[in-house]
Parts: sequence; structure tokens; C-alpha cells
Amino acid sequence: MSRAFTLAVIPGDGIGPEVVAEAEKILDAATAGSGIRFEKTRFSLGAGRFLDTGDTLTDDDLASIKAHDAILLGAVGGVPGDPRLKDANIERGLLLKLRFELDHYVNLRPSKLYPGAPGPLADPGEIDFVVVREGTEGPYVGNGGSIRKGTAHEVANETSVNTAYGIERVVRYAFALAERRGSKLTLVHKTNVLVHAGGMWQRIVDAVATEHPDVAVDYLHVDAATIFLVTNPSRFDVIVTDNLFGDILTDLAGAVTGGIGLAASGNINPDGAFPSMFEPVHGSAPDIAGQQKADPTAAILSVSLLLDHLGLHDEAQRVTRAVEDDIEARDGTARETSVIGDAILERLRA
Amino acid sequence: MSRAFTLAVIPGDGIGPEVVAEAEKILDAATAGSGIRFEKTRFSLGAGRFLDTGDTLTDDDLASIKAHDAILLGAVGGVPGDPRLKDANIERGLLLKLRFELDHYVNLRPSKLYPGAPGPLADPGEIDFVVVREGTEGPYVGNGGSIRKGTAHEVANETSVNTAYGIERVVRYAFALAERRGSKLTLVHKTNVLVHAGGMWQRIVDAVATEHPDVAVDYLHVDAATIFLVTNPSRFDVIVTDNLFGDILTDLAGAVTGGIGLAASGNINPDGAFPSMFEPVHGSAPDIAGQQKADPTAAILSVSLLLDHLGLHDEAQRVTRAVEDDIEARDGTARETSVIGDAILERLRA
Ligand SMILES: CC(C)[C@H](C(=O)O)[C@@H](O)C(=O)O
Ligand SMILES: CC(C)[C@H](C(=O)O)[C@@H](O)C(=O)O
Repeated sequence: MSRAFTLAVIPGDGIGPEVVAEAEKILDAATAGSGIRFEKTRFSLGAGRFLDTGDTLTDDDLASIKAHDAILLGAVGGVPGDPRLKDANIERGLLLKLRFELDHYVNLRPSKLYPGAPGPLADPGEIDFVVVREGTEGPYVGNGGSIRKGTAHEVANETSVNTAYGIERVVRYAFALAERRGSKLTLVHKTNVLVHAGGMWQRIVDAVATEHPDVAVDYLHVDAATIFLVTNPSRFDVIVTDNLFGDILTDLAGAVTGGIGLAASGNINPDGAFPSMFEPVHGSAPDIAGQQKADPTAAILSVSLLLDHLGLHDEAQRVTRAVEDDIEARDGTARETSVIGDAILERLRA
Repeated sequence: MSRAFTLAVIPGDGIGPEVVAEAEKILDAATAGSGIRFEKTRFSLGAGRFLDTGDTLTDDDLASIKAHDAILLGAVGGVPGDPRLKDANIERGLLLKLRFELDHYVNLRPSKLYPGAPGPLADPGEIDFVVVREGTEGPYVGNGGSIRKGTAHEVANETSVNTAYGIERVVRYAFALAERRGSKLTLVHKTNVLVHAGGMWQRIVDAVATEHPDVAVDYLHVDAATIFLVTNPSRFDVIVTDNLFGDILTDLAGAVTGGIGLAASGNINPDGAFPSMFEPVHGSAPDIAGQQKADPTAAILSVSLLLDHLGLHDEAQRVTRAVEDDIEARDGTARETSVIGDAILERLRA
């Protein structure tokens, strides 16, 4: 049997190309000899492209990306404070634009403390949960504006837009996931302050919960959730939350499970209408770019999520296992990006 | 010399009355024999009052509270899920209403890891920073609404309102504080996503920074800030941030410095137009109410902030020192609320 998938590869800026190179090695090796092929198209996008051409994401880029089965992204973003990027906002114009245009309404971010991973907590316990972050609504919609900009009378508003349509679909996804994991679901919001958006989230979770009597459901305010992430992270299994709270919680979750160098993510369109996009949670870290200092593990674990999404579950599991074995063997010695990639590759082939 | 201050005391709900009782003991003892007197008015406010009378905060309550020099608040909020409180929202109608009506634009939340305090971090280092949280703007303004509520076509918006006036005054306060502490200031926001509000915060910080050449200034996205709070909390000295980010960061900061049972706060109107309000960061914890299980330390440290605010710096310092001594002597044995209060009282008198 032979199957071919088309893959859009966006290495991006900073450490992006370095970690993506390792991720591609692993992707190729995980499928080698199986008759599964990835036909890759490489896209030059990010701060580098903007500085070269003035483009962030053209209609042609977008149309071409849409024609692929999946996307692998490294990281995008230039050197902070670079005056040439002052008005660029690569994050909004490229990364968020992809998430919104490709209707990535599930931003899937697993957090697992692998045996051997160094974490900041004295007594972490077992950590193994997934954050299902809404990806297309909330405070991220870009519905803001200013009046009297630059004066003493400036007013800047930012509007969080939330729809029953948008919340219900991500909540359904989260419940299905919680059901598969045989466990519980925690809604995180700030219902006591953001009463309209929070109230709708709560009502929809309550309604969908009636269809999943096996899933235990609870609720935490976002501030309380950050406390539990450091005092009792084992209490979490599936967290469903809005775009901004999910952004905050998953960076914190990455930190408590051994660092953002291990945190993978999938920007998923579960309906399959558009290709899903897999990327490490970390940024482009221009300060260490090109020095082989970045940990490619998060990018490699993103490949595992990508394989899973495409139905290649065995391949996904082999990648995760190779990573787990590598993490378990780590002793704190710094290794170059490609050395880590090669070590995981070797375990994958073993 | 004799001086009298009027103090509005709002014990509130749940563990509020228990911790306030200890805080009052300490307040009285700290000023005993000094000629300083606190004339207290007790206000019955919170879920309990709402259930009795249907009132959350009447105009009369508010006018009477305004006539005091300062406010000491325990905690407000009923049992989560109590059907009789379904439409009450004590948080918005009472706590946030007080902060907004009394123009508490500085929400001051110090975070210090006292020697002996138990924290979740394996290697916390020295932690001693202050979060200056904006208290009267941002996503907390209550400018939200829904259409088609309860239908599949519901849309709920929440608008964060931010003004140059509101940001500049809190930023100035934070810079003055950073200058007094001889150190640095970190702006926390999400400028890459909330470009209008975040852009204004950044511009105002940049502008005020030119008047404080001694203060080192940096910036972190809120997600990155949560990482540093668990991996390198020593990097922080003064954090200035918006209302919602400040809410999240201070709960997390409380957790990393030994728990929310130690976290004090002041809701301050620096202009003196209205009385400032001092309260522990924790909530009313109805599940442990009336059992003498709550730690009154956060309430007692809030008394220290209150004394400081009224210019009683020596008294404030004596309270803090008594608390520090008590924390240092803790060995993990559970003590009743009043036992902790008495132990601190004894040290204060020593
Ligand atoms: C770069 C930024 C826009 C992005 C976000 O806020 O979603 C990042 O922090 C992330 O979590 O993927
Ligand atoms: C109770 C709630 C409205 C409040 C807030 O969000 O400000 C609390 O969390 C706090 O931090 O004082």
C-alpha cells in the first residue's frame, strides 16, 4: 500500500528552521519503508520574508497552503525591537491569520511530565493533561481600535467576540476527547467578571455535559487554575478554555512540565475543511538562532501530533516513544539541536 | 499626640469574618499605647446580606463607606452554585463596584517568599516583587453584552476599555515605586495580539520611562511572564500590568510564594479622593468557613499595607516583622485561625 500526503513546511524565523530540520528528519524516518510519503512544499514566510519583500502572507501563499493536507510550522517572528518590523506584526499578520483563515478552532496543547524531564516543581506528581484552547474567537479576533491615538485622551478598546457556534464546536471536541481519555473536563474562564462570554461558555458546557454523563465536569476561574497548575497539576485531565486564557495556561503548563522546549501543539480544523497546522508552542528565539542551541523536541512532538491527526497512529506513537526514551536518558548536559534530533532518530529506528 | 482614623470593616462571607477578627486584633495591638485610634464601623455586606435583604451594595452603604479613612475587607462571595445567588454576582456588584466607585486605580500586590514559607518550587531563589495591577479599566469595566442569548446564534462580546488617563496614572505610580525600590519595572501585556490596548500601554511606559532614567524597564508578554514566575521569579521587581493580567499573575505569584493564605493586597486611590481598601487576595472559601481552618496571615499582612498607606510606617513594619517571625517558625503543623493570630500578636508585643 502506498499513500501520499502533501505537507506545507513553514520553517519561519530564528530557531524555526533548525528545529524544523530535525522534525522533518523524524517525520521521514517514522514513515520510511511504510509506503507513506510526504510531498513537501517549503514556504518562506515570517519576518525574513517580510524584510525581503514586504509581504507577510499573500493571497497566493494562503491559497497554496490551503491545498495541502497538513502544515508543519517552526516559529515566526523577528528580533524584538527591530525598527524595520515596527509596523509588521508578524504574529497577527501571519500566525494568527493562518489560524483564523484555516479555521483552526481547536488549539490542542498536551502537557505531560515525562519521566526524567526537569521541571521547576519540588513535588510535581503525575502530570498528563491536554488543553483544548479555542483558536478562532475571544480576545484574539482583532476587533479593537483607538481614538485620539498618542494624545492624553486616547481610548483603546479591545473586543472579545464569542459565539455559541464557535464555543459549542470546541466544547464538543473537548468532551469527546475527555470521553476517550476516560476522565474529566475542566472549564476555565472568568465567569464572575466576564459575565456575558463566561456565562455562555458555562451554559454550553452544561448543555453538552448532559450528552456525556461519563465525563466529570468542573469549573475554575483562570486565576485559580494557575494556582492549581503549580500546586496540584495532577488534578487536570482535559481543560477547555478560551483563546487568551489558553495561551496563558499552556505557557505555564509548558514551564511546569519541563519547559517550553518540550511543548507541542496542533492548530486543528477537525472538520477537515482546511489543513491543520502543527507547531512547537515556543517562539523564534532570535537570540539563540543559528547556534544549534534550541531543543527540537517540541517540534518533533508536534510531528507526532501531525501523524496522529492524519490517522497514522502507530507512527505517531513511535515518535512519542522515541522522544520519551530520549528525555528519560537526559542528564542535563547541553546537546546541540541536531544531536538531540539524531539521538531521537536513532531511538526511533531501534 | 493622639490621632484617630475611621475604618470601615467589611468582614464579608465564608472565612472573611474569621480572618478579619485576627487582623483587627493585630491592628489594635500595633497601635496600642501610641495615641493612634481606629474608630471602626462594621458593614454587613456580601452574600449573607444579599440573602437576608436582597441588597448587594446600596447607595447608603457606599456613601457611608466613602466617609471613612480606610477599609478593611475579609472576603465576599457565597457558596458556588447556590441557586439563591444565581443572579447575584456579589463579585461585580460589591467587590468590583467598591474598586470602581472608590477609584482604586492601583491594586497593589506584593509577593515575597518569606524564609520558612512553603512553596511549590524546587529552587525558588529570592522572591520579592510587587505587582501594580490597574484596578479600574481593562476587561473589568463590564462593557459587555449578549444577543440571542440562549440560542444557537448567541454572540457575547466583552469590551476591554483602556484610557491614556487611566494607564498613565498607574504607570506613574509603578515607576515611583520602582524608583523607591531602586530597581526595575516590567510591563506585562499581550501587545502582539491586543495591539491597540497593548500599544498604548507600551507607549505610555516608554514615555514615563524617560522621566525615570534610573529605573530599568523591560517588557514581557503575559504568557512568558507566567513561565518566568515559576522558572526565575527573582527576575521581577515591580510589575505593572492591566486588570485581568494582574488578576492572573498575582494568584500565580501567591502560589509560588507559599500560597494564597499569605497574599495581601491594597486597592489604593493614591490621590486620597476616596478611602483605600485592604484585603487578602484569597476568596471566601465557604467550604472551610467557621472551622478556624483559614490562615489569617494574608489579612494581617493587608493590615500592614493599610498602616503603611496611612503613614504609620513603623507600625506597618512591626506587623510585617511579627508575621515574618511567625512564618519562619512554622513547621507545617496545622494551627487554628485564632492560634495563628495569637502567635503573631505575641510576637508583635514582644
Ligand atoms: C505568537 C502569539 C501570537 C501566540 C499566541 O498568543 O497564540 C503564541 O503565544 C502561542 O501561544 O502560540
Ligand atoms: C473575586 C474577583 C472578582 C477578584 C478579581 O478578579 O479581581 C479576585 O479574583 C481578586 O483577585 O481580587
